[in-house]
Amino acid sequence: MTVVAAYVYKDGERVREAQLSEQGLALGPGEFVWIGLCDPDMEELRLLATHFHLHPLAVEDALNAHQLPKVEVYGDELFVVARTAELDGDHIHYGETHVFMGVAYIVTVRHGSARAHTALRAQMEAAPALLRHGPDYVLHAVLDFIVDGYQPIVQEIEEEVLQMEARTLDAFLARADIRRIFMLRRQLVRFRRILAPMEEMASRLEHLELPAIDPEVRPYFRDVADHVRRTSSLVDGLRDVLSQVFEVSNLLEQQRQGVITRKLAAWAAILAVPTAIAGIYGMNFEFMPELHWRLGYAYVLGLIVVLCAVLFWRFRKSDWL
Amino acid sequence: MTVVAAYVYKDGERVREAQLSEQGLALGPGEFVWIGLCDPDMEELRLLATHFHLHPLAVEDALNAHQLPKVEVYGDELFVVARTAELDGDHIHYGETHVFMGVAYIVTVRHGSARAHTALRAQMEAAPALLRHGPDYVLHAVLDFIVDGYQPIVQEIEEEVLQMEARTLDAFLARADIRRIFMLRRQLVRFRRILAPMEEMASRLEHLELPAIDPEVRPYFRDVADHVRRTSSLVDGLRDVLSQVFEVSNLLEQQRQGVITRKLAAWAAILAVPTAIAGIYGMNFEFMPELHWRLGYAYVLGLIVVLCAVLFWRFRKSDWL
Amino acid sequence: MTVVAAYVYKDGERVREAQLSEQGLALGPGEFVWIGLCDPDMEELRLLATHFHLHPLAVEDALNAHQLPKVEVYGDELFVVARTAELDGDHIHYGETHVFMGVAYIVTVRHGSARAHTALRAQMEAAPALLRHGPDYVLHAVLDFIVDGYQPIVQEIEEEVLQMEARTLDAFLARADIRRIFMLRRQLVRFRRILAPMEEMASRLEHLELPAIDPEVRPYFRDVADHVRRTSSLVDGLRDVLSQVFEVSNLLEQQRQGVITRKLAAWAAILAVPTAIAGIYGMNFEFMPELHWRLGYAYVLGLIVVLCAVLFWRFRKSDWL
Amino acid sequence: MTVVAAYVYKDGERVREAQLSEQGLALGPGEFVWIGLCDPDMEELRLLATHFHLHPLAVEDALNAHQLPKVEVYGDELFVVARTAELDGDHIHYGETHVFMGVAYIVTVRHGSARAHTALRAQMEAAPALLRHGPDYVLHAVLDFIVDGYQPIVQEIEEEVLQMEARTLDAFLARADIRRIFMLRRQLVRFRRILAPMEEMASRLEHLELPAIDPEVRPYFRDVADHVRRTSSLVDGLRDVLSQVFEVSNLLEQQRQGVITRKLAAWAAILAVPTAIAGIYGMNFEFMPELHWRLGYAYVLGLIVVLCAVLFWRFRKSDWL
Amino acid sequence: MTVVAAYVYKDGERVREAQLSEQGLALGPGEFVWIGLCDPDMEELRLLATHFHLHPLAVEDALNAHQLPKVEVYGDELFVVARTAELDGDHIHYGETHVFMGVAYIVTVRHGSARAHTALRAQMEAAPALLRHGPDYVLHAVLDFIVDGYQPIVQEIEEEVLQMEARTLDAFLARADIRRIFMLRRQLVRFRRILAPMEEMASRLEHLELPAIDPEVRPYFRDVADHVRRTSSLVDGLRDVLSQVFEVSNLLEQQRQGVITRKLAAWAAILAVPTAIAGIYGMNFEFMPELHWRLGYAYVLGLIVVLCAVLFWRFRKSDWL
Repeated sequence: MTVVAAYVYKDGERVREAQLSEQGLALGPGEFVWIGLCDPDMEELRLLATHFHLHPLAVEDALNAHQLPKVEVYGDELFVVARTAELDGDHIHYGETHVFMGVAYIVTVRHGSARAHTALRAQMEAAPALLRHGPDYVLHAVLDFIVDGYQPIVQEIEEEVLQMEARTLDAFLARADIRRIFMLRRQLVRFRRILAPMEEMASRLEHLELPAIDPEVRPYFRDVADHVRRTSSLVDGLRDVLSQVFEVSNLLEQQRQGVITRKLAAWAAILAVPTAIAGIYGMNFEFMPELHWRLGYAYVLGLIVVLCAVLFWRFRKSDWL
Repeated sequence: MTVVAAYVYKDGERVREAQLSEQGLALGPGEFVWIGLCDPDMEELRLLATHFHLHPLAVEDALNAHQLPKVEVYGDELFVVARTAELDGDHIHYGETHVFMGVAYIVTVRHGSARAHTALRAQMEAAPALLRHGPDYVLHAVLDFIVDGYQPIVQEIEEEVLQMEARTLDAFLARADIRRIFMLRRQLVRFRRILAPMEEMASRLEHLELPAIDPEVRPYFRDVADHVRRTSSLVDGLRDVLSQVFEVSNLLEQQRQGVITRKLAAWAAILAVPTAIAGIYGMNFEFMPELHWRLGYAYVLGLIVVLCAVLFWRFRKSDWL
Repeated sequence: MTVVAAYVYKDGERVREAQLSEQGLALGPGEFVWIGLCDPDMEELRLLATHFHLHPLAVEDALNAHQLPKVEVYGDELFVVARTAELDGDHIHYGETHVFMGVAYIVTVRHGSARAHTALRAQMEAAPALLRHGPDYVLHAVLDFIVDGYQPIVQEIEEEVLQMEARTLDAFLARADIRRIFMLRRQLVRFRRILAPMEEMASRLEHLELPAIDPEVRPYFRDVADHVRRTSSLVDGLRDVLSQVFEVSNLLEQQRQGVITRKLAAWAAILAVPTAIAGIYGMNFEFMPELHWRLGYAYVLGLIVVLCAVLFWRFRKSDWL
Repeated sequence: MTVVAAYVYKDGERVREAQLSEQGLALGPGEFVWIGLCDPDMEELRLLATHFHLHPLAVEDALNAHQLPKVEVYGDELFVVARTAELDGDHIHYGETHVFMGVAYIVTVRHGSARAHTALRAQMEAAPALLRHGPDYVLHAVLDFIVDGYQPIVQEIEEEVLQMEARTLDAFLARADIRRIFMLRRQLVRFRRILAPMEEMASRLEHLELPAIDPEVRPYFRDVADHVRRTSSLVDGLRDVLSQVFEVSNLLEQQRQGVITRKLAAWAAILAVPTAIAGIYGMNFEFMPELHWRLGYAYVLGLIVVLCAVLFWRFRKSDWL
Repeated sequence: MTVVAAYVYKDGERVREAQLSEQGLALGPGEFVWIGLCDPDMEELRLLATHFHLHPLAVEDALNAHQLPKVEVYGDELFVVARTAELDGDHIHYGETHVFMGVAYIVTVRHGSARAHTALRAQMEAAPALLRHGPDYVLHAVLDFIVDGYQPIVQEIEEEVLQMEARTLDAFLARADIRRIFMLRRQLVRFRRILAPMEEMASRLEHLELPAIDPEVRPYFRDVADHVRRTSSLVDGLRDVLSQVFEVSNLLEQQRQGVITRKLAAWAAILAVPTAIAGIYGMNFEFMPELHWRLGYAYVLGLIVVLCAVLFWRFRKSDWL
């Protein structure tokens, strides 16, 4: 059941279901067909290729779902590859949507995306004024739908990034935090990598001179490109924040180490005083006059306390303690 | 009360208040209208869209205030998005101003900006010679007004940056300083991100060939672009300083740690001498000849002092103390 | 035996073996010849150069196998340099394939590559419909063959990179791991360095206006460029991961050092207590009242335990232990 | 006294002093006027603006001396902003020179620069063959004069940078050295920031098609651009050296810390031997047979010496000492 | 003796020596002159400038040997600046070669380069078929000669870089190694800085449309550009290796410090046991029951051994020892 839906439209209204039989698909004037496939096999694509004279290279691409976003023009026909992205628990799940488009047909092929086009189709059928434009407007709607799907991803990541930022400035990063930031960065880098060709693709669609693209629909493609650009700008901002979080966390940790090192050194110096003095008066010489003094012990304890206090005061003054 | 002001102008003079009623807005020859809105709702924008035949995509953008600066041309109509920025205590508050412009009208839509256009309007009405140019000159004035608003932000940040720089070179950065530098960098990065599309937007306005833009007004747009470029150059300079402050603070802290480590190591070595010697003469062997010497104690104290002095002198010579 | 194979083709079918004799090579209309060489010597290339009027600079390049990928046009003739890459145990072995192409001939020269073109030739002869296109399609097939050879390399490295990434996040990198990551990075950097000119070369082939290149074959060159671009994108991703692995491993090691330093400092402080106290009561003063107390020893042991416990509790509370 | 000099020239010879009076400035055919101002006030610029019909935006720029280098064309008139730089003790003092130029006039406006144009003017008047070209050649001469002023700055900084480099490789950087390198970098970054637009400005002048610029004078502007490019290349080189100095100083300090840490650890281990052994034989047990041996003391001293020697020898072997 | 050689050529054959006298240099049809100078003084260049109508700016450049590589066109005349580089013991010695070229003359001016053009001239005179092309081919030959001179430099440095790389991975970098890497990097950076404009210069020569450049000679200039590009690619690769060597050496040193720190901490903990226990039993309390036990000493020694063994075993388990 890979053919999800196939209908013929005229003047923005759904006219009939399209029959993809051997005899081909007869379209009346002003009619166009929108066929939606999901993970099709080679046989089904072959059939469509024969119907619509799709270019073999485009068909081959549509079978192998590991393309970067792009537009390709074969004569009057258009082949568009877009990447979909959805949050799936903790990580981003990427899919692909391929579109073949001519003057009177549009074929959308979904690969590995959970968001079906059913709602989109219903919503468009509810607005015949726009659907009247034909396949080019459908193409815009599909791209807009895909790009809208990026929004929740960016928002979710943004929230986590801001949380991480706050944590970095307040406390010290634990091992798990560093690992999490690393994973967030990887996700952002990977996500960013599909945004650049997506934007380029939408921009190229805006400027393509093809019979299949009505000049009135062009601003809509620019709108999609704009949308992607805004998402890219946000993603770049988040990556900046994360890399600064790493850097500042580094500096803060270093500063903290410095403070601790100085504090430890100060205490070590203070504690070295009783050890050294006690060591000396623990020697077993026969003739050590102090040992026989009545107040020898008190004097030594006093000496220790005074020396320690002096050291403590000096370290405090130079901000080590 | 989102319609802040709406007046019809002719030959640079305010002629009458514009009535945005159902019957539309009749303009005489040589007249143009300048309508100022603030955070309008959908209904009001719809009304204007019908009046001036605004493009639905532009209207939709004007409702959602999260656009990057841009210019868009729809036929003879222009849609401009500019970002405003104002200092609000410690952080920068961003707003947006959207402008719809045609040959005989200009609609300015403010989103989330506290600086009203009232003073600007008064100032322009005081100089009819320039206002005579029409909506294009008003557009320039609005952009100039927005860009002028960037100045105090940059100055405020610059002052803080220079202060931080001086502090880094004089003393060591405390935790709060590092945090503050981090916040300043974030603000600069974010601010810089709107300057690039602002400059591009102004440059595009300079080169647009549209009936609504008088060639004589073009140098004024170049002037705005220039102004933004100067701000960008300043912001880049400040970012450079901040990142160098981080780097140099890093190096200085490292150098300081090195000095402290060497000093501590030297004192530890010097203090290890009495401990070791006292330990040995603290042993309880029956036959330890030194213990019975008359001057044993004095000799040991002397030995300790001599050894410590030698070590001290050597460390001083090799610059550890 | 450097001439591996030399056949004349017509309408996609192999017609006869080509004789490269002194008298030259007579081709009928619609015929083209495909000559495959492997590490040829100067004499053989000279012979071909005379036959096909190859440009001396191209011939000289074909002799010295240390070229970057490129396309060069000499009149109607094309000279293409492509880099081959194969996994050879642990490291990547690079070779070169040079192609001379005219309207009726294609000469492929392999340098230091273990993958012969025999299978490729057989496969193409099995599809006469495509081979009919002529030398330009053969050129595409050779490039596609070379670029397909990049796949296993990237996959192998990707596997290792992901393994390294997982190891970094789970445990600490050993010396051998760091060394391995370094080697992987070097390989990726070097591999990446040939991908950029390969893509540029394929893109240029797509846009070249030459009698020897049929417009119908152009999309095939675009397909090759696309393939290289995808590989580049993957390689860039892997390099990103590796450099982040270095960075995060750095941070994790630093964080670990911080934890250890604090733990050690805490234990050192706790152990300093008995040492200092025992030192004091090890002094040999005649008049030390505590020494004669009945419970002196017990009291001192108790004092030590209590002080150590207090310190332990405070360090635990401030998360040092 | 802001009008420094104002003379009318014809055929490369100074003809008469120019009177900037109310009645305007009458120029005969083939004559041009060169007016030199220094920090003019608004009144004076207004007067000139009326005389030469200068564009109000250019005049406004000329009043506010915080422009980036640029060229602006208003009709046939040219407005050029150049940045001057002079060494003032330890830091670089920046100024600006603005030039208004038309077919028959050139106005040079100096802001905050100590180097007057008097010598330049004298030198040009001594070479009428070149001055004959008119205002365009004067413009070149002024720019050349400004760019020549960059030379001593770069040389001074270069000398210091090379000194710092040598010091880094020979010894360790002190706090003051790091601070000095930081200041040098800041100066270079700031200086570099004006070179890029200066070069762009000169390049634009070379390619401008204006009646006021004789094609024969163009190579002279290219020469200025070339000069700036060479300076930029030098400055970039110095910045590279400085950033490498930081990096290598970092590595050297780290390597030194490693050596010291190992040396300290080795000595700590060696000194721990007598402490531990002496501690044991300092215990007060009644039944410790060694204490009563005749050679107990000698044996213990021997044991300590042997153990320390073994440790010393092992540390020496593994290169810690 | 700065005029090294000056000969007139016709049809690729040397015809006669050129006399640079006051009366000028009369050339027959089809003849061209190749004049080779070495470090000329102003007088000699003036003479040539008059002969060949060289542009004063080009002549001035030819006197000051601190130019970046470039091509300049003055009318039909060409002025080319190329940088030569030779290994001189441990460092690279840079020189410059300037070329003036017209339809019937070529003047090559060497500055500070030890490699004379004598061999080059002999070699070209031995191949009249190529020399027949005229000055443009001579220009190519000179550039090719200069670029060939880069080869041994890159090879020498490459060898050293690979050696350094191997050393980094096997052992730890000593102070001298770090210093050497720093010097290698500086040399590569400086060398790279002349390669970019050299490539640009050769590329520009390929595309120049001048009567003095025969279209057939263009591929030869492309060949030179290609050669430089290959050198650049190699140099970039070496710089990458060096900067990775720094980075990995950093990580390895850090990892090593971590291992040593943990080992030292473990031994310090183990050695703290006898010290603490011995300290306690070294106290002089009257009533310490253990001191009077018969096996007190044995029990304490046993306790120390057991505790140390337990600690040793735990540290071994957690990989600290």
